[in-house]
Amino acid sequence: MSNFILDNALVLTMDDQFSMVADGAVAVRAGQIAAVGSSAQVVEQFPLWPRYDLQGRVLMPGLINCHTHLPMSLFRGLADDKELMDWLNNYIFPAEAATLNEDFVRTGTALSLWEMLRGGTTTVVDMYMFEKVVAKECARIGMRGVFAQAMIDFPTPEYRTWEESLEGTRQFIQDWKGHPLIIGAVGPHAPYTVSPEHLRECHRLAEELDAPLVIHLCETRSEVELIQERHGRTPVDHLDHLGCLSKRLVTAHMVWPQDGEIAKLARHGVGVGHCPQSNAKLACGIAPVVKMLQAGVHVGLGTDGCASNNDLDMWQEMQTANLLQKLSCNSPTVMTARDTLHMATLGGARAAHLDHLVGSIEVGKRADLIVVRLDAPHQTPVFDPISQLCYTTKSSDVTQVYIEGELVMSDGNVPAIEEAELRLAVAAEAERVQAILRR
Amino acid sequence: MSNFILDNALVLTMDDQFSMVADGAVAVRAGQIAAVGSSAQVVEQFPLWPRYDLQGRVLMPGLINCHTHLPMSLFRGLADDKELMDWLNNYIFPAEAATLNEDFVRTGTALSLWEMLRGGTTTVVDMYMFEKVVAKECARIGMRGVFAQAMIDFPTPEYRTWEESLEGTRQFIQDWKGHPLIIGAVGPHAPYTVSPEHLRECHRLAEELDAPLVIHLCETRSEVELIQERHGRTPVDHLDHLGCLSKRLVTAHMVWPQDGEIAKLARHGVGVGHCPQSNAKLACGIAPVVKMLQAGVHVGLGTDGCASNNDLDMWQEMQTANLLQKLSCNSPTVMTARDTLHMATLGGARAAHLDHLVGSIEVGKRADLIVVRLDAPHQTPVFDPISQLCYTTKSSDVTQVYIEGELVMSDGNVPAIEEAELRLAVAAEAERVQAILRR
Repeated sequence: MSNFILDNALVLTMDDQFSMVADGAVAVRAGQIAAVGSSAQVVEQFPLWPRYDLQGRVLMPGLINCHTHLPMSLFRGLADDKELMDWLNNYIFPAEAATLNEDFVRTGTALSLWEMLRGGTTTVVDMYMFEKVVAKECARIGMRGVFAQAMIDFPTPEYRTWEESLEGTRQFIQDWKGHPLIIGAVGPHAPYTVSPEHLRECHRLAEELDAPLVIHLCETRSEVELIQERHGRTPVDHLDHLGCLSKRLVTAHMVWPQDGEIAKLARHGVGVGHCPQSNAKLACGIAPVVKMLQAGVHVGLGTDGCASNNDLDMWQEMQTANLLQKLSCNSPTVMTARDTLHMATLGGARAAHLDHLVGSIEVGKRADLIVVRLDAPHQTPVFDPISQLCYTTKSSDVTQVYIEGELVMSDGNVPAIEEAELRLAVAAEAERVQAILRR
Repeated sequence: MSNFILDNALVLTMDDQFSMVADGAVAVRAGQIAAVGSSAQVVEQFPLWPRYDLQGRVLMPGLINCHTHLPMSLFRGLADDKELMDWLNNYIFPAEAATLNEDFVRTGTALSLWEMLRGGTTTVVDMYMFEKVVAKECARIGMRGVFAQAMIDFPTPEYRTWEESLEGTRQFIQDWKGHPLIIGAVGPHAPYTVSPEHLRECHRLAEELDAPLVIHLCETRSEVELIQERHGRTPVDHLDHLGCLSKRLVTAHMVWPQDGEIAKLARHGVGVGHCPQSNAKLACGIAPVVKMLQAGVHVGLGTDGCASNNDLDMWQEMQTANLLQKLSCNSPTVMTARDTLHMATLGGARAAHLDHLVGSIEVGKRADLIVVRLDAPHQTPVFDPISQLCYTTKSSDVTQVYIEGELVMSDGNVPAIEEAELRLAVAAEAERVQAILRR
């Protein structure tokens, strides 16, 4: 791992002061940010390090995708425009039951990373089955993330019993302890698929192993009604009652929290992965993001899996998040371009409890950096780079991606992915999925 | 103008039967579609014509942008996250008043076409000042459209008086009569900026010249209240009372029609240009598109101008339209991928009253065709091409664009645009805009 300087950039640090440096530079030493400042200052500090001229492009922290299911890219466009339960019970669950295995998960993960790295995502919070395979493929390709082993009260293609899943999760988390990119997590699927006693066990395991706890929460109105009916409490209160709210918890969706629940999320430091496109496509609703942010909740952005999005494009997710909040708050002044970019970077890092490592360009943080050009026709002219990054930037404008100081994407190419081989593997898996659906 | 065949394509005709032809072809003669069918059939019909192998890519009708203000790309990102009136009165109107002239309009139009052609738009419904310059630049570069000369009850950088604007519009429309690409139109700005008597005059002029009539209508709740207060009727009823509703009328926005008004729009064959991203960004609301479509209203999609979007990307507009209808109808089954694609093609052609010319691939229509590749990582795998086109296709997936049988964009290049020269002109205009705002 080498030391180097990225210079002649518009450095957008995304720190709490929203500092920007024109003709700026970042020095990287052993995967860590060693200096940030004007090109002249940084070069003076490290005169002998190699320099890469970014030609005035934007240099900013990588994007943080706070909720996804990486292998589900192999179900992209399999079933659209369906009611949630029809979609799950007649398409997704049967396809998963029949096709899921380690090869499927490895191939789907690689396909997702190919897309994500080309678009500037450098950290994921993932939840799926065979998560050890997802983590291994991410480590190989160079993606950072929190990887939650999905746990559920019925048999899966991976585990026959709850006890097996608990033991498998413990082993998975321990196996990856100390890895520079991979953090294993406990992943109870949702309060409607995991019993109160099992949720408590998950929380205890996360505490014992000092691991994150990841869960889907408050995704639909019917979930709120169901939990209220079964347990006498709405979902966040239910988890609070079980002692599961803490600063190690990352929740996905949070479309329907009650006002008192929002205060609890803030007080306990719970993270929220907001998934506007998935929530819209499945007509779940619009999460009260502005209200949560005002209450001090750490809200990040997530794409959800490709079965319900149908892509992993964080720039489009930003734009959708922005527009939906303006609509639902009935005000064009809420969720500014800054707020939106913050949610995709430092806000996301806080939601994933990774802000000591990533989310902003600050000395001592890991060197997860992306380079964005603002000179395509759809970006021209530039009056305000922040506006362009929020409202007009596309994945195709990202030209380089560094994770842990390694160049993992350059001009659309991901060195760790052998494209022809991956395409063959994807085609084979897609054929298996289609064969299932034809039955 | 030559004759040729595009073969080995997945032909998506977008006709009323939603016909698709695998291994299909389209023959083009003198800018017109001469045949559609299997590659074998079409080649047998025209054995001597040159063939271009599309390598299995999608061949479909070009996208129709039913509402935009082309020169406003020069105001992209100038002012975001503002209240509508603050945005208009303190940013857009002063910028327009100080910078607008023929050079500005020509440069802004070229910039917009550069972006639009790269993304597969082949027809625009435009409204702006100096519209004769917009039309001329579109004719030069090869874009089809309806070009509405903006008319308003106060002086503009173009016309000092209403009479001047009426006379200028008459001249403009007559000058372009018979052109293969350009249709001049009468463009009263809105019912709150044009008096009832002037609206009647606009309608009479459109009737006399057999030209389209284009107007902003029902964009905001406050517009509805204002018109109700001033004229005792809501906006559509107001236009009906003035005799302006007809099948030559194209309205933009239509966020707040009353139920009885929707029936009137359908009965008179009025077109609607739905602008979901602009309506969201300015917090105007979500237009009742599903309700209008069910009532038989012709609804197309529009991006609006870059000052309020901030780009001209019809694929993102499709995705936003789709998601907003699912949310506002509280149902994931409405506004299917098919419905969405229809709105951007044949539905848009009907809304712009151009469906005798464009909107679908049918023998006798003009050859406005686009080629879309579905093999980028974000498009892989393909279970359903319709799903991909609606939910995952990006502008960068469009590889060729033909308008009137001419290849106007290929692999990102627009032959009629000299890029370096255009960039210089844009930079000069942007500098003028910034100088104004610094004052």
